[in-house]
Amino acid sequence: MEIRNITVEDYDKVINVLNEWWGGRQMTHLLPRLFFEHFQPTSFIVEENGHLSAFIIGFVSQSDPNQAYIHFVGVHPKLRKNGVARKLYELFFEQVRILGCNKVHCITSPINKGSIAYHKSMGFSVSLAPDYEGIGQDRILFSKDI
Amino acid sequence: MEIRNITVEDYDKVINVLNEWWGGRQMTHLLPRLFFEHFQPTSFIVEENGHLSAFIIGFVSQSDPNQAYIHFVGVHPKLRKNGVARKLYELFFEQVRILGCNKVHCITSPINKGSIAYHKSMGFSVSLAPDYEGIGQDRILFSKDI
Repeated sequence: MEIRNITVEDYDKVINVLNEWWGGRQMTHLLPRLFFEHFQPTSFIVEENGHLSAFIIGFVSQSDPNQAYIHFVGVHPKLRKNGVARKLYELFFEQVRILGCNKVHCITSPINKGSIAYHKSMGFSVSLAPDYEGIGQDRILFSKDI
Repeated sequence: MEIRNITVEDYDKVINVLNEWWGGRQMTHLLPRLFFEHFQPTSFIVEENGHLSAFIIGFVSQSDPNQAYIHFVGVHPKLRKNGVARKLYELFFEQVRILGCNKVHCITSPINKGSIAYHKSMGFSVSLAPDYEGIGQDRILFSKDI
């Protein structure tokens, strides 16, 4: 298992599996290439023999440099529940702490019960934000002191 | 005309007009709330008597802090061709220069002939990137030294 910072060359391999890893949901529009271009220092990819195993995409907030935001985390469906996501979150926490952050945020849709349970188990606080992304677009907000 | 940094409270008013300002195209999925949360120092809004006139959303690249990226620029259809967009670009250039940038990037779809002509007139270089956002998703890349 190799973990390294993400590059623009990783964009196609991630985008090609994204909908499949999310059980067929259309997700690719949520992950434009700009995230691979501009947030490399805090975004990581895991590969096994050259095959994509997992990735995390996040950045330091430019509104409040003490805060960091995780935009996307994906793990190959066959590699779930083996600790690779935890490893990526911990690597992200470590990296953004070095950059001066003491809080991490992320969000999900209320439908993602698995994500909500997972973030609780990782020590994130959880709250519901009605109409967060527009009318009828509720989101679950996670945050954690690091 | 009042120009100020964007806040999270501006999210709803921008998202509510976005598709309309883009001639009915579905655009809201391209502008999640995270841009209003985390890129306030380099994102601006123009209002006239409390009504939204225009906005620009951009950030400093965290991969290369000499580069900045403009994600979205919108002007009320009735206020186009009066220089408000130019004012926002110039304000963005000024702000990211203060933050250490000497180059600005942005992209559009090849269908946006108006955007391509506009960026040329603003001194951006223009190139076509086939499959930039995935297979069949060509983009026009703009860049400009500032």
